Amino acid sequence: MALMRSWVESANFSTSDFPLNNLALGVFSVGEDEPRCGVAIGDKIVDVAALEEAGLMDLAGAPLFDVPFWNELMEAGPEVWAAFRARMTELLVEGAPEKAEVAPHLVAQAEAEMHLPFLVSEYTDFYAGRNHAVNVGTMFRGAANALPPNWLHLPIGYNGRASSVVVSGTEVRRPLGQLKPPQAERPYFGPCKRFDFELEMGAIVGQASDGPVSVGEADAMIFGYVLLNDWSARDIQAWEYQPLGPFQAKATATTISPWIVMAAALQPFRAVGPEREVELLPYLQEPGPMLYDIALEVALTPKGGAESVISRTNYREMYYSSAQQLAHHTSSGCPMNVGDLLGSGTISGPVRESRGSLLELSWGGKEPLELASGGVRNFLEDGDTLTLRGAARGAGYRIGFGECAGKVVAAMALPDWAK
Amino acid sequence: MALMRSWVESANFSTSDFPLNNLALGVFSVGEDEPRCGVAIGDKIVDVAALEEAGLMDLAGAPLFDVPFWNELMEAGPEVWAAFRARMTELLVEGAPEKAEVAPHLVAQAEAEMHLPFLVSEYTDFYAGRNHAVNVGTMFRGAANALPPNWLHLPIGYNGRASSVVVSGTEVRRPLGQLKPPQAERPYFGPCKRFDFELEMGAIVGQASDGPVSVGEADAMIFGYVLLNDWSARDIQAWEYQPLGPFQAKATATTISPWIVMAAALQPFRAVGPEREVELLPYLQEPGPMLYDIALEVALTPKGGAESVISRTNYREMYYSSAQQLAHHTSSGCPMNVGDLLGSGTISGPVRESRGSLLELSWGGKEPLELASGGVRNFLEDGDTLTLRGAARGAGYRIGFGECAGKVVAAMALPDWAK
Repeated sequence: MALMRSWVESANFSTSDFPLNNLALGVFSVGEDEPRCGVAIGDKIVDVAALEEAGLMDLAGAPLFDVPFWNELMEAGPEVWAAFRARMTELLVEGAPEKAEVAPHLVAQAEAEMHLPFLVSEYTDFYAGRNHAVNVGTMFRGAANALPPNWLHLPIGYNGRASSVVVSGTEVRRPLGQLKPPQAERPYFGPCKRFDFELEMGAIVGQASDGPVSVGEADAMIFGYVLLNDWSARDIQAWEYQPLGPFQAKATATTISPWIVMAAALQPFRAVGPEREVELLPYLQEPGPMLYDIALEVALTPKGGAESVISRTNYREMYYSSAQQLAHHTSSGCPMNVGDLLGSGTISGPVRESRGSLLELSWGGKEPLELASGGVRNFLEDGDTLTLRGAARGAGYRIGFGECAGKVVAAMALPDWAK
Repeated sequence: MALMRSWVESANFSTSDFPLNNLALGVFSVGEDEPRCGVAIGDKIVDVAALEEAGLMDLAGAPLFDVPFWNELMEAGPEVWAAFRARMTELLVEGAPEKAEVAPHLVAQAEAEMHLPFLVSEYTDFYAGRNHAVNVGTMFRGAANALPPNWLHLPIGYNGRASSVVVSGTEVRRPLGQLKPPQAERPYFGPCKRFDFELEMGAIVGQASDGPVSVGEADAMIFGYVLLNDWSARDIQAWEYQPLGPFQAKATATTISPWIVMAAALQPFRAVGPEREVELLPYLQEPGPMLYDIALEVALTPKGGAESVISRTNYREMYYSSAQQLAHHTSSGCPMNVGDLLGSGTISGPVRESRGSLLELSWGGKEPLELASGGVRNFLEDGDTLTLRGAARGAGYRIGFGECAGKVVAAMALPDWAK
């Protein structure tokens, strides 16, 4: 597929995350104004709420954009999703007759503050990247037992905490928690010492279900994708996670990109999953390519320092797609709702430079990572800014998500009642 | 504390779950009418939405009961919770001058259909009953390793699925899932064979928080309690739960009682926690008695058969209180919201007759449970109705929750795509 040219010139640059082919969705505000729905185009945002108010966008006979989140468009269903993209394309394409009416509703991205783009109903996180699972399993259980016995048969997942999801740019406070160093006899309560990131993609469920769905049906329920950083307190997790899984280790924050890329924009970049060493059960088999070719990178910027790219990988490294994860999620009859968010699991490639967490990059702190800009890291330090970027790459254009960034700030002082 | 007499005569019977001392909160409908907020009194429901419309209840200068859930009262905060109870008491107490104005707004419970009493924001389930943890641990890991090393130091919890929470009376379909019998080489997809209940209490978070809170603060954030049945697919869980905890095994349904008992109604029944074998860290220490003396029972009724009470226990058997669980839940900075639901964990007493799950009652199917009404059970069978009941008992009165019941219906036929 080729670049679709827009009358917004900056959208036609091959380096822009937001050509007309993308039409990424966000919620923005300028100055003291209330947050509103907007679509990214080049270095601008189209104020979609204003288009609707001006009568330029009427998809459902009732307002969809009078609220500062995209859930109402999701609720409206796949036909309206398609109609929305068609109408936005019509309004923004080079030579659009409505250009003069739309142009007043453009805002510079540089002047906008971004907000959470949708109301997160519930959040589930998976453990579905094979390289990551092998790396972590090798560190904790040895190479012979790296993959748990169920791993090749189902996408392992756990429920996370929707209340912890924040938009890119939100500072992330180093958590307190109950910690027990391996040699200590007893645990203590204090700041996490092994605070980490996890490079993931998030899939947004755009249609509800009330019983098991097939992988194909699940794929059609996915509205779009975001970049996702599943901040992880490794030392809290090590002590708490047996036998019922991660809890407070993953509850401090989960940062997502400000822009949702709709599944429709990613269709030209479908990628096939890996060879299956063990045949999947029929309910998890894919009717076609369900992954996407999305190049990903992770950058770390120490306080006052220069940025170092510490990992480069690709979403197609996943063993299980979001569609498979969603199908498995519904298998017990678990009701899914509009706005549910599914974290892909950490996306690590096959080599060190493509690992998706510091736990892997520093091999549990045993092989400190040297930053290109100087210094070393085993885990995150206060003042570090961690930035995820990602884009599918077409001929002369890219479909990006903007940056998914968060700065780690120092833990709060221990409250008196915790001393 | 003694019974407070009401002009609703049935509320003064010592066998009623709903004396004036209780004022339990539900959402009900009659016939084709829309669901509304109501308060249980004896065998009646006071239509609180109607009281508000009639000008008999004005707590916040703005309507709180024009919606079919109690979250708005929760949002209004503890002072309004107290004002609400004071005003309801004033209207319903024996000799109340407003009797003639209130009486037209009484509905017979027998004529009402009950709905979910609040919007569940997120759902967390704990593993905080020591007898249950020892029983399950002994079955799976042997008596010497029954309690995980962290168990006596923190209330182990995992995030559940809010979308699965249903009100008493909702039928529960036996789940499908991925199963691997211990001797089988490979898993298969089919109906759960070891479907179970778990007797729990649910605590409802009534105030939001955005950082760590103390146990005392957590206790003040709890709005009320419900009975809770955490339906569990033991065979799905056995295969899926390592290493990240239960997922689809707990996602089919979680049934709660139709009535919320406000924490205020339970204050006369405070109970102290157990002796601590290991001293808790300061952040988990309790400023006073945080449990409640609530007698609980579980009844099983086979299809077309008679009811057998299969367990009797008490909420004060818990090792960790809901306040401790909530404090721990916030320790990482995890934001809590109005409407969050915390499952206590299975409440098993010290003897067989007080165990809170069939897994324990039948010792994993090795000691089939004989029903008083005839027949035996290892796990639940299709057509079984499982009913939880509970009440705190005062002098001549009880504070109850109504019944928390669900009937197990047969699994759906395997969809073609799962064959």
